[in-house]
Amino acid sequence: MALTGVTRLGYVHAKVTDMADAKQHYCENLGLLPTTEEDGKLYLKGWDEWDHHSVLLEEGGVGVTKIGFKVNKVEDLDTIEKKAQAYGDVPTERMSAGENAEVSDGLRFRFGGHTIELYHDMTEVGVEVGVINPDSFPQEIKGIGAPILDHALLALDDVDGIERFFMEVLDFYPSERMVADHSEGAPVIATWLSAGNKTHDIAFLKGPDAKLHHFSFYLKDWGAVTAAADLLVHRDVPLDLVPTRHGITRGETTYFFDPSGNRNETFSGAYVMYPDRPCVTWTMDQLGKGLDYYRREVTDTFLTVFS
Amino acid sequence: MALTGVTRLGYVHAKVTDMADAKQHYCENLGLLPTTEEDGKLYLKGWDEWDHHSVLLEEGGVGVTKIGFKVNKVEDLDTIEKKAQAYGDVPTERMSAGENAEVSDGLRFRFGGHTIELYHDMTEVGVEVGVINPDSFPQEIKGIGAPILDHALLALDDVDGIERFFMEVLDFYPSERMVADHSEGAPVIATWLSAGNKTHDIAFLKGPDAKLHHFSFYLKDWGAVTAAADLLVHRDVPLDLVPTRHGITRGETTYFFDPSGNRNETFSGAYVMYPDRPCVTWTMDQLGKGLDYYRREVTDTFLTVFS
Amino acid sequence: MALTGVTRLGYVHAKVTDMADAKQHYCENLGLLPTTEEDGKLYLKGWDEWDHHSVLLEEGGVGVTKIGFKVNKVEDLDTIEKKAQAYGDVPTERMSAGENAEVSDGLRFRFGGHTIELYHDMTEVGVEVGVINPDSFPQEIKGIGAPILDHALLALDDVDGIERFFMEVLDFYPSERMVADHSEGAPVIATWLSAGNKTHDIAFLKGPDAKLHHFSFYLKDWGAVTAAADLLVHRDVPLDLVPTRHGITRGETTYFFDPSGNRNETFSGAYVMYPDRPCVTWTMDQLGKGLDYYRREVTDTFLTVFS
Amino acid sequence: MALTGVTRLGYVHAKVTDMADAKQHYCENLGLLPTTEEDGKLYLKGWDEWDHHSVLLEEGGVGVTKIGFKVNKVEDLDTIEKKAQAYGDVPTERMSAGENAEVSDGLRFRFGGHTIELYHDMTEVGVEVGVINPDSFPQEIKGIGAPILDHALLALDDVDGIERFFMEVLDFYPSERMVADHSEGAPVIATWLSAGNKTHDIAFLKGPDAKLHHFSFYLKDWGAVTAAADLLVHRDVPLDLVPTRHGITRGETTYFFDPSGNRNETFSGAYVMYPDRPCVTWTMDQLGKGLDYYRREVTDTFLTVFS
Repeated sequence: MALTGVTRLGYVHAKVTDMADAKQHYCENLGLLPTTEEDGKLYLKGWDEWDHHSVLLEEGGVGVTKIGFKVNKVEDLDTIEKKAQAYGDVPTERMSAGENAEVSDGLRFRFGGHTIELYHDMTEVGVEVGVINPDSFPQEIKGIGAPILDHALLALDDVDGIERFFMEVLDFYPSERMVADHSEGAPVIATWLSAGNKTHDIAFLKGPDAKLHHFSFYLKDWGAVTAAADLLVHRDVPLDLVPTRHGITRGETTYFFDPSGNRNETFSGAYVMYPDRPCVTWTMDQLGKGLDYYRREVTDTFLTVFS
Repeated sequence: MALTGVTRLGYVHAKVTDMADAKQHYCENLGLLPTTEEDGKLYLKGWDEWDHHSVLLEEGGVGVTKIGFKVNKVEDLDTIEKKAQAYGDVPTERMSAGENAEVSDGLRFRFGGHTIELYHDMTEVGVEVGVINPDSFPQEIKGIGAPILDHALLALDDVDGIERFFMEVLDFYPSERMVADHSEGAPVIATWLSAGNKTHDIAFLKGPDAKLHHFSFYLKDWGAVTAAADLLVHRDVPLDLVPTRHGITRGETTYFFDPSGNRNETFSGAYVMYPDRPCVTWTMDQLGKGLDYYRREVTDTFLTVFS
Repeated sequence: MALTGVTRLGYVHAKVTDMADAKQHYCENLGLLPTTEEDGKLYLKGWDEWDHHSVLLEEGGVGVTKIGFKVNKVEDLDTIEKKAQAYGDVPTERMSAGENAEVSDGLRFRFGGHTIELYHDMTEVGVEVGVINPDSFPQEIKGIGAPILDHALLALDDVDGIERFFMEVLDFYPSERMVADHSEGAPVIATWLSAGNKTHDIAFLKGPDAKLHHFSFYLKDWGAVTAAADLLVHRDVPLDLVPTRHGITRGETTYFFDPSGNRNETFSGAYVMYPDRPCVTWTMDQLGKGLDYYRREVTDTFLTVFS
Repeated sequence: MALTGVTRLGYVHAKVTDMADAKQHYCENLGLLPTTEEDGKLYLKGWDEWDHHSVLLEEGGVGVTKIGFKVNKVEDLDTIEKKAQAYGDVPTERMSAGENAEVSDGLRFRFGGHTIELYHDMTEVGVEVGVINPDSFPQEIKGIGAPILDHALLALDDVDGIERFFMEVLDFYPSERMVADHSEGAPVIATWLSAGNKTHDIAFLKGPDAKLHHFSFYLKDWGAVTAAADLLVHRDVPLDLVPTRHGITRGETTYFFDPSGNRNETFSGAYVMYPDRPCVTWTMDQLGKGLDYYRREVTDTFLTVFS
């Protein structure tokens, strides 16, 4: 595909109620590496990430204050800005270099209470295994050793609207969608949107505006997901969805909560998505199968607990 | 990324010495599904593919006669044609609908003895699990049950040249490259090129022009790769590289030969690639580690056996 | 250990409400092989079993009518009979060859409504892979392809009593035990008893006399257990405990029901048990962790649904 | 089975050329825990072992000076001593408590240059996860985190003889045997002997007397075996047999060398053995398949490198 536009979810700024607890969780359980800690902000990256941070923690409650997508080239910002202006409706503003430490200038949208930034550059600090005849993983890994941020699921009321915006302005496309029922034009309950070959780089679920459902880290396979769950329960981290397969995307998953109540996910599997692959449709009566392929029941929390 | 240009490797036309043997191998061992058999051609698809075929077999020796990449939109053909003309050097021609059964019109390049086609459409026959509240896999799977074609590795003399062509005209980018040594400007021995988020949709290796190294099917994980190898050796299919991890791409792999001597691969793992992820460089003295992360030796056949 | 006495759980005679449905389940889902079907009885074996049958199905409701343990040598029957007589209390009788088709003479006990037989020989039909330079698995496997019966869990009121009988007369020893609480002499709720190096060849749970909790088939690993669950839910077999790790024995497990309501298990993992390994104790307040290491909750059915 | 006689391989006394290197390997790579270090001897145990040590290292070359099997009861020593005397030929002596630190009195045999001890007790130090409502694994694991010693393979000339001795005096039985060819009475090349339900607690291979082939640690599954190999190659530990499946026992395996040249194995899988399971026979022409199910070739070192 053309190497322009959004390439990936680059960062999540998460609020936490207690920084010491949060640091312990993200560094010791998830195994993220702190790159900077200043002004009450903790910057973290996975061992297989090259940019300065993918998770930024700050005290002040729960939820995400914003997420950032990295675009491939500086020129992409202009292109997207023009498309956004033509699209109308969605407030767009320029963001300056330095508004986010280590991050270039960019664009900022607000939709459904969410702040979404685009940027073209971040200080590069390198993957832990290097790039010359590298090993496949680093010698030292803490806890789960999450390699890399993968995607987020955000809640808002206007799922239809944000899906259209992401498709028309940001060139995402849906791999799977959940609709209310089989009727023509049934409301969209959730959408999983890809910017490339992943089943989703971002997903949206009908729910309260401005709320986070979860953000997710990619593990290499089911064995890694279950080993991660073994470790999490051993450390009394509350699991929200025990290791299972999602029917949606076929991905393997565990949901759990950070000490502040933000939901994290470890995720693997899922098929390779291509733009011409037929989009999958789920109906709400099959949400149980879609969420938890084995149990085929919706957890009490899936549609109700956000942060 | 912008949803234009090449989305994936769509088909491989392979020559085989005996169709009955080949059909038995691709259908019973790999588990591909025959969609059409006519005029001495057998069209095959994986259970998780939606287009009419990804592998076409025809008697007449060994090797591939051509490969095809699917582009996202019909307009992409014009864009690419113009870029190719501007690039020069590489003979380009228009291809008509029907030159390949079930395939739309397109473009055709020749480089290093290889014929490379681009097309924007193929008759859609659907994935075996359907697209409404689907199960994660079909009830009936034969042999390995390879879901989908993933990539190919082709040999040619001018690796530098074809890499540049794929980057400049087709918008691919390299995830990993092997060079002769650590010196500045050392010759490129091999390159793994991505059109999206996979570590490679195509790779090229310095070797005899017009030759195939292997084509590859994506399996879900290491367990599937080893189970596939269990089945293959049980059926006396000659393995060329027993199940191992590639240092290159970190992918998990088995190489084996079809009855005609074309090398197949089953492949899983590999990290998620992004355009801004730093490209990995391998030096030839570490080819053993790159090919076979455990054994750290190059097989006798890797650099010498093509079809 | 001395090669005398009970070597393994050899057979389970299960009642089913409808033979056609049961046959479909045990042959197509579990992948057991029918060896004989006569007089309304269906005899089944796993592909990795050598004796004529390990499961016998008969119409007439649900539950097990009896289970049989194979002893190593014919002389063991005398030894055990004498120990049983010395032990007293437990009615013991001789069983003639032919009372069970294909099964030698033996002994029969009744305890807590359960009929337990011992035998020293059964017609041998051979493992499917043979014994000369064998492959690791057969070419043709249906459904899950359960290789071999592993253990059963039976309910009865007098768990203390049957545990003592199995230990003193049959030379079993406990690997893990669940007691009501941490108090000295707290009642035993359940016991997992080994006749060798498995964590359990039989287990008993406090509950209604004469009832079956489940019988279990050994799969090779966690990947096989989850693949089995994938297949079962795909075929709408009701799961009772979705794939998880037991804290008890560390085994990986799925519980599901046959069409008559008998609970089956597919099981893997668990540590290697030795007679000198310290016995593990669980208290009832930790049953959730013991049953489902991830969820740490007891299912509604675990202590209440028997057949 | 009757809870008398040999229950397991309890210890291996290995010679090493450099204690510091050896300690680094066994503690940091294999993850064994040092329990005592005195008089130039390092005592080690796995996290899932309860006795004081399973591996004892001492400087002075390579190989094993002796191995010890634990019997279930002190009386077993008398029984075995009498059987050994009746058997004749094999020199037997009583061993006093304290000849081996932390180990009870016992018996000692010598056969084919090997010293084999039996003991009924060792100081118990407990498994790392405890025995009351335990977790499935400890929080802190180093390197591979090998839980427990599993078996050893020793070389000697008189394989027939030692097999007969282990069967008749020690109540072992063979799960698999390798013979020279298909002829009646073909010489035994190797034998895998079980004392319970494992495919082997000890194995013997025709070769130079008094030599070690390998000793082995049990891992939970194939994923753990490959993860261990990932770690070993990352740390430049020389692999002798890269991760593969043995045809023999179906076990999953990696062979590697400690810094002194003693071969270690990490091992998983293998079927559950029972005394009445038919013994498997391999012929030497199929050793490749037996050793390395995928490659079907014998490594240069398998029959030639001992320590």
